[in-house]
Amino acid sequence: MSKVAVIMGSTSDLPVMQDAIDILKEFDIEVEVDIVSAHRTPEKLFDYGKNAHTRGINVIIAGAGGAAHLPGMIASLSPLPVIGVPVKSTNSIDGWDSVLSILQMPGGVPVATVALNGAKNAGILAAQIIGATDKCMLDKVLFYKEGLKQKVIEGAKELKK
Amino acid sequence: MSKVAVIMGSTSDLPVMQDAIDILKEFDIEVEVDIVSAHRTPEKLFDYGKNAHTRGINVIIAGAGGAAHLPGMIASLSPLPVIGVPVKSTNSIDGWDSVLSILQMPGGVPVATVALNGAKNAGILAAQIIGATDKCMLDKVLFYKEGLKQKVIEGAKELKK
Amino acid sequence: MSKVAVIMGSTSDLPVMQDAIDILKEFDIEVEVDIVSAHRTPEKLFDYGKNAHTRGINVIIAGAGGAAHLPGMIASLSPLPVIGVPVKSTNSIDGWDSVLSILQMPGGVPVATVALNGAKNAGILAAQIIGATDKCMLDKVLFYKEGLKQKVIEGAKELKK
Amino acid sequence: MSKVAVIMGSTSDLPVMQDAIDILKEFDIEVEVDIVSAHRTPEKLFDYGKNAHTRGINVIIAGAGGAAHLPGMIASLSPLPVIGVPVKSTNSIDGWDSVLSILQMPGGVPVATVALNGAKNAGILAAQIIGATDKCMLDKVLFYKEGLKQKVIEGAKELKK
Amino acid sequence: MSKVAVIMGSTSDLPVMQDAIDILKEFDIEVEVDIVSAHRTPEKLFDYGKNAHTRGINVIIAGAGGAAHLPGMIASLSPLPVIGVPVKSTNSIDGWDSVLSILQMPGGVPVATVALNGAKNAGILAAQIIGATDKCMLDKVLFYKEGLKQKVIEGAKELKK
Amino acid sequence: MSKVAVIMGSTSDLPVMQDAIDILKEFDIEVEVDIVSAHRTPEKLFDYGKNAHTRGINVIIAGAGGAAHLPGMIASLSPLPVIGVPVKSTNSIDGWDSVLSILQMPGGVPVATVALNGAKNAGILAAQIIGATDKCMLDKVLFYKEGLKQKVIEGAKELKK
Amino acid sequence: MSKVAVIMGSTSDLPVMQDAIDILKEFDIEVEVDIVSAHRTPEKLFDYGKNAHTRGINVIIAGAGGAAHLPGMIASLSPLPVIGVPVKSTNSIDGWDSVLSILQMPGGVPVATVALNGAKNAGILAAQIIGATDKCMLDKVLFYKEGLKQKVIEGAKELKK
Amino acid sequence: MSKVAVIMGSTSDLPVMQDAIDILKEFDIEVEVDIVSAHRTPEKLFDYGKNAHTRGINVIIAGAGGAAHLPGMIASLSPLPVIGVPVKSTNSIDGWDSVLSILQMPGGVPVATVALNGAKNAGILAAQIIGATDKCMLDKVLFYKEGLKQKVIEGAKELKK
Repeated sequence: MSKVAVIMGSTSDLPVMQDAIDILKEFDIEVEVDIVSAHRTPEKLFDYGKNAHTRGINVIIAGAGGAAHLPGMIASLSPLPVIGVPVKSTNSIDGWDSVLSILQMPGGVPVATVALNGAKNAGILAAQIIGATDKCMLDKVLFYKEGLKQKVIEGAKELKK
Repeated sequence: MSKVAVIMGSTSDLPVMQDAIDILKEFDIEVEVDIVSAHRTPEKLFDYGKNAHTRGINVIIAGAGGAAHLPGMIASLSPLPVIGVPVKSTNSIDGWDSVLSILQMPGGVPVATVALNGAKNAGILAAQIIGATDKCMLDKVLFYKEGLKQKVIEGAKELKK
Repeated sequence: MSKVAVIMGSTSDLPVMQDAIDILKEFDIEVEVDIVSAHRTPEKLFDYGKNAHTRGINVIIAGAGGAAHLPGMIASLSPLPVIGVPVKSTNSIDGWDSVLSILQMPGGVPVATVALNGAKNAGILAAQIIGATDKCMLDKVLFYKEGLKQKVIEGAKELKK
Repeated sequence: MSKVAVIMGSTSDLPVMQDAIDILKEFDIEVEVDIVSAHRTPEKLFDYGKNAHTRGINVIIAGAGGAAHLPGMIASLSPLPVIGVPVKSTNSIDGWDSVLSILQMPGGVPVATVALNGAKNAGILAAQIIGATDKCMLDKVLFYKEGLKQKVIEGAKELKK
Repeated sequence: MSKVAVIMGSTSDLPVMQDAIDILKEFDIEVEVDIVSAHRTPEKLFDYGKNAHTRGINVIIAGAGGAAHLPGMIASLSPLPVIGVPVKSTNSIDGWDSVLSILQMPGGVPVATVALNGAKNAGILAAQIIGATDKCMLDKVLFYKEGLKQKVIEGAKELKK
Repeated sequence: MSKVAVIMGSTSDLPVMQDAIDILKEFDIEVEVDIVSAHRTPEKLFDYGKNAHTRGINVIIAGAGGAAHLPGMIASLSPLPVIGVPVKSTNSIDGWDSVLSILQMPGGVPVATVALNGAKNAGILAAQIIGATDKCMLDKVLFYKEGLKQKVIEGAKELKK
Repeated sequence: MSKVAVIMGSTSDLPVMQDAIDILKEFDIEVEVDIVSAHRTPEKLFDYGKNAHTRGINVIIAGAGGAAHLPGMIASLSPLPVIGVPVKSTNSIDGWDSVLSILQMPGGVPVATVALNGAKNAGILAAQIIGATDKCMLDKVLFYKEGLKQKVIEGAKELKK
Repeated sequence: MSKVAVIMGSTSDLPVMQDAIDILKEFDIEVEVDIVSAHRTPEKLFDYGKNAHTRGINVIIAGAGGAAHLPGMIASLSPLPVIGVPVKSTNSIDGWDSVLSILQMPGGVPVATVALNGAKNAGILAAQIIGATDKCMLDKVLFYKEGLKQKVIEGAKELKK
């Protein structure tokens, strides 16, 4: 069974990152949640990044704000696909700092970046990554997309009344 | 065997997107290359997005510049993970347009965005996505990362001379 | 008689887009309102774009936020003039994402972009587009502009008291 | 027969604005070209804006760089639809100044803004505006879009060889 | 005696522009206040700009938001020094639009731009402009600057307690 | 007779600032040129700012790049109107640093900021400042503006051929 | 014993700058606090910058907002290391003005810039600067970093419950 | 004797970082140069950061481009003052990515950031940090600043000829 890690730099990121946890559970994917601070717990960062793939984790979702180094450093340490969630933290310069610190990784070490505060999409992307080679998860993604469509169609009906 | 599609909005994106093709071949991943323009060939976009997963493709890499809609529209149509490469095209406003058009997808439809012109990283990320559930590909990623390290160490040695 | 379509990516865009509907009614232009999500209802997008001009619609106003692909995709599918309204949505990066995703269309597929949240101006522009070849509508536009002027002149009088 | 005015703030904008003239001619639309500087020939600006619609002009395309006031001032003076082309001039701050000076018009006075240096799209948009109520021009637009598609399809074929 | 005109595009700019009026009165400079909208009252703009210097006005302060064309257009029409105040209006893109629309004037037609919402400084600058050739006003400016200094020194004393 | 000081932070700013010197001479205004570095010659900055108005100078034009403190510091020290020219220097972040360092002065200490590299406009603005109370200089400004107009009209004629 | 000066341009900066004072006291470093305005008290700025190192001060922390010249001017006048804190003041353009005015110093005159509103980090950096040559302070820094780590680890434990 | 480490993420950063090495030698400070890539050699990063202060290093200068994590990660691992140099690398988004990734560090872990490509200033800042508690180095800094002044004064003389 697949397992996704959701880590974040600080407990203050949890309100944003909870969306990733919730949607992963909706997809029946096992989730492991932890606080790993690149800047305050570098040793934990190291252990986490080095060993995640040996502990049965398939995808890592990492959220951080400001000069957000957690996603990129985890991507440096782990061979797994790392999804980065730029969090718009207090004193952020409109979110540009977290977006650019996560997105603009150098050649060789990608981070799959999603939208500012886009933790929900990070969870869906993790499901799609698992679905890339797992027919059953792919069907769930198709089913989920069908649900999105229905909600828009109902909204359109509502509007026309 | 895994297969990755590399599509782009225009032949003018090829010099940038070639990096994705090259690195995928280095990882011995089968690559399918095509030109699919969201704005000029919307029917092809539709067919491509709707059917990619039924044709044995596992991951789609989509590159585009300016108001770059190709990655997001493919993500709208396909259940597969879509990696978006913002291309810095002529008359782009410093690349901000392609970056934001690809990154800032709404809840429900993620695009795994990499750095501006980061096609090489898109290819590596595709390998990591396959490696998420394929032990053999994961080992190749580990091996690749070891190679990156060796090159830096040699550079450091060279510098000290 | 002329007809303008006002479509938007989500019901959450309605508070902004209502301004377009209101001003169009002020100009006695028939309005058709719908929710069409480029990312969640791509089939509806396709049908809408392909057939709008065959259903007697003359101008399409499309509003969307974030990575706003609706205006550009409708412009890709329809030969009609498409007016794009960048909506400043939650988690938008200050509106830059919607502005650039709508404005920076590639050569061949224009979107007539108006200001951030400028739905009212989108409605006026639609009236002007109809007025380009309809003397009666042109007179309404002239009359409307006269009204704008009077309001400023009254404001100036008020100020001087 | 329809007529489109293409005006610009300075002869130095001509290399960019020529694209609008060329594509309009391709659409067999009569074009009137002039230099009208909002800042250096305000009287001419006034006359031009006030009288364009009485001289049989249907759409005005206005290009300008830097603090680009020409499109907005023409829109202030004329009831016709005005298409604004932000030109990336020397000493421009990356084009942001012209884009924002043209796009962010106040409620009541829209400018249909196209991409930075997007004069070609301004011309196509003018054709679409005429086509909004002129079946024959609409067909030309459909034909033009078909041509765009064919070029992409040929490019894709070329790539596969 | 010197006279300064304070004009603005809309009564909604008054709360910001009042600072200019207040400080000018503090300097005992005669002030004339008016609403002149570049986009809604272009004829008034024209008359105002053309005749201000013949009516005994020495300096014009013009405030506007969004695509702020009032300061630049007045500078186009009048030989007087024009001070532009970028106003951060609703739906402004963080004030960048008004700043760049006022600041980035083309060669030949300067606008003396002050900070975003910096109407107070516009008033002081007008006093300094008059003081450039009027010894008495220059002394008032020196006296005003002395006052600024005293307030800081008192603040510093307060802090040390 | 009026006198304008043109100062700059470094000899490397001279190619940009020369435009101010040239246009001032065209207006027959006496010019004093000097290098005053806020960061490298703070004592000279101090003396210069404190004494300029006692030496018969009427207006100060100050150009600087990067974290451009010269115009603001001179404005801090002198009661004269200070015109700031943001210079786009090497390693500047697209000119934004010099623009914002000069423009965004706090309440009490204005700098009359012109466009990026807009030294020519700084010179014209100085002439207008002198013209604010000097009828003869005002006439020269009117004459200069007439010249600008003629050049555009000739350009328009040339274009029509 | 070491001594750090904490200065700011205005008492309105105190709520932000207090963080620097508090953390310095936590490190048992002697603190001297003062208001020094580059723009309103240039003489005090001069004296302060020229004499700080002769009065036993080892490091200067300077906070300012908008066109923030205090840190750079102090760095111009003093041979001591100057830490600049960009303060996000009212009417700031999202903090960009203070960040760029402090960061982008020319060659020869560095300012050690910390994050927007990052006064706490300025204090820690001052401790580290002292610790660079003072073993005892270095140990305090190590101890402080250990504390940061423990808080994250406790947060992670809390989360897992 | 004091010792400063100059490290960078890649040999391609050397042309920029050489300026730091050169100026440190001018100040007779011992320099240790190395390549340490946060993303490609995380183990080396770890060892380097953990042990630098035990090997007699007093200050660390770290330069990196794009999503520049090296300075922040070294600051996470070391108690020493870390000076960060944002390098404008290829495919950088105008340098904003490196500036924000280095500057916007979270509370607790400062990086002393200098200007884009400001390696020379990083070296001078290191000298000032040592000079904070070393009278002899402080004198060298004073002497260096005197030299800067002389060069400007000579430039001014040259200009006046």
